[in-house]
Amino acid sequence: MSEIRQDPTTKEWVIMARERAKRPHDFVRQQAEAEPPAFEPSCPFCPGNEAMTPPEILSYRDHETQSWRVRAFANKFPALAPEGSTMRREEEGFFLGMDGVGVHEVIVETPVHNKPLALMEDSGVADVLFAYQERYNALSRVPFIKLIIIFKNHGPSAGTSLEHPHSQLVATPVVPRHIRMQYEVAIRYYDNTGRCLHSDLVGHELRIGKRVVMETERFVVFHPFASHQPFETWIVPKAHQACFGNASAEDLEDLAHVLRITLLKLYRGLNNPDFNYVIDTAPAGDENKDYYLWHLRIIPRLTEMAGFEIGSGIYINTALPEETAKFVRELKVE
Amino acid sequence: MSEIRQDPTTKEWVIMARERAKRPHDFVRQQAEAEPPAFEPSCPFCPGNEAMTPPEILSYRDHETQSWRVRAFANKFPALAPEGSTMRREEEGFFLGMDGVGVHEVIVETPVHNKPLALMEDSGVADVLFAYQERYNALSRVPFIKLIIIFKNHGPSAGTSLEHPHSQLVATPVVPRHIRMQYEVAIRYYDNTGRCLHSDLVGHELRIGKRVVMETERFVVFHPFASHQPFETWIVPKAHQACFGNASAEDLEDLAHVLRITLLKLYRGLNNPDFNYVIDTAPAGDENKDYYLWHLRIIPRLTEMAGFEIGSGIYINTALPEETAKFVRELKVE
Repeated sequence: MSEIRQDPTTKEWVIMARERAKRPHDFVRQQAEAEPPAFEPSCPFCPGNEAMTPPEILSYRDHETQSWRVRAFANKFPALAPEGSTMRREEEGFFLGMDGVGVHEVIVETPVHNKPLALMEDSGVADVLFAYQERYNALSRVPFIKLIIIFKNHGPSAGTSLEHPHSQLVATPVVPRHIRMQYEVAIRYYDNTGRCLHSDLVGHELRIGKRVVMETERFVVFHPFASHQPFETWIVPKAHQACFGNASAEDLEDLAHVLRITLLKLYRGLNNPDFNYVIDTAPAGDENKDYYLWHLRIIPRLTEMAGFEIGSGIYINTALPEETAKFVRELKVE
Repeated sequence: MSEIRQDPTTKEWVIMARERAKRPHDFVRQQAEAEPPAFEPSCPFCPGNEAMTPPEILSYRDHETQSWRVRAFANKFPALAPEGSTMRREEEGFFLGMDGVGVHEVIVETPVHNKPLALMEDSGVADVLFAYQERYNALSRVPFIKLIIIFKNHGPSAGTSLEHPHSQLVATPVVPRHIRMQYEVAIRYYDNTGRCLHSDLVGHELRIGKRVVMETERFVVFHPFASHQPFETWIVPKAHQACFGNASAEDLEDLAHVLRITLLKLYRGLNNPDFNYVIDTAPAGDENKDYYLWHLRIIPRLTEMAGFEIGSGIYINTALPEETAKFVRELKVE
């Protein structure tokens, strides 16, 4: 018999489809991608091609050689750009619209064309996280910015066309309903209990243990009870902190190690799957609230969203998080 | 400059990304799929293989030959099945879960392995719609069923592995939050105006005209103002009716023609794209409400949802519905 589970952070239901269930190793990619070269002359993110990108906003460079390790710049084809008005306007006497005002940046994670985060050193991943935070904190002070989404698309089915390792940041002038609703759930829980829902969730997962993949001094990695998709993975800080921008340097150093190991396990265990990750964090002005906890959410793209999900918002997950967590927990990587 | 538009039925924002915008013909599939055979001996949905499926629940047959034109049966690997309890239970002292109780059926649309709806006669499409409605109305009387989703997945990127034309029906024991929220929006509009939001939307689209693709006596086809994805297409009845189960035979006859022409235009214009469609209709008990209007929503799978959409719930659409609607409106098919 299938099981229906409620995601405590969204109150959405997820069907754990026992009849269609697959074993964790059924999700291993069968055909490996051809490995790209370490340098690709036509790639705008490769060293020497810096003039092909918009002007550099941030870079971390080696003291001696002055060559960059991480670089950020505006997206050449931005979804949103810092021009126009944030005034809502009535469109055609019926709809609501506004200018596409916002910020869209690219963070190139390494000069090496074929070095994904999973195969870097901890220090390389830490560079990327510090760059995220530096751009986050610079933009969170801009008055018209209401939400900052930092995310990564790895592989074609995760929505990227450029193979050079990079992340993106989009800052929006609106707080979408999708985020407001998660907040409503968190606030209601806080009002009822006096505690942070996500912190309680982490404490519970640690006590139960069976969905936990990894634990360090500062972070817990687990596959959620109501995972929307196979191998969905959350990395959550143990100490309360609503906003990624306020994570300490020690937090980011620890996270770099945890994120690298987590991505390396997916890379080795599932044979370099396409995936997205996103940092869920408090919107502007809510950085110090007691009721939210920032976290990083990894969504391997192993199944397709189909008509039922589009119509109902209910996901059908063909793998149990208890089983996928065990599979990943038992993988040995360094 | 990009533009941000609000979907009036969900209050979600959609970014119309001018800088990344594509022309409608950029979405034409370049490589055509190899055409499948008209009969595939190993296909469980082909005639002669009826014993490979669970027992038949419904079939429409030719009077003379008694061969079936449309067949329905339980899904062999159901996401939900009619056994177990609808009681919610606390899981692990923290979460909420319940049995996977519900119904999951398959409707085979034609005996011909390689005949999609787009290439049928109107009468063949009508058979399929009457089968949808017959199953809908049979299941809507079952007390534990709260929502019935009828949908179709066409092509691998739309989530199907079986190429024989078929649709599915999933009946759930819960009304998901995703649906409740659309209802909240519709109810608020109704309370403020005394009118149905979707009916007003249809009236507005007809007056403005530029996103309308087709109009018949009973239906309007348009690309929504805040389309989430390129070529998103809605087919909406002109007369008020909350529930698909209550559509008249004349409605379904007209819809069969409208749906066939709409799918044929996508088939010819975009070279047989993968797509999903879903019938959005009122949940159980709300069949006669004034504030909702059932409709059929087609989502061609031309772009991938990426990290930004996963994190924010805001879609980035790279095509303007005014342009895609013009492209489709001007296609001539019969």
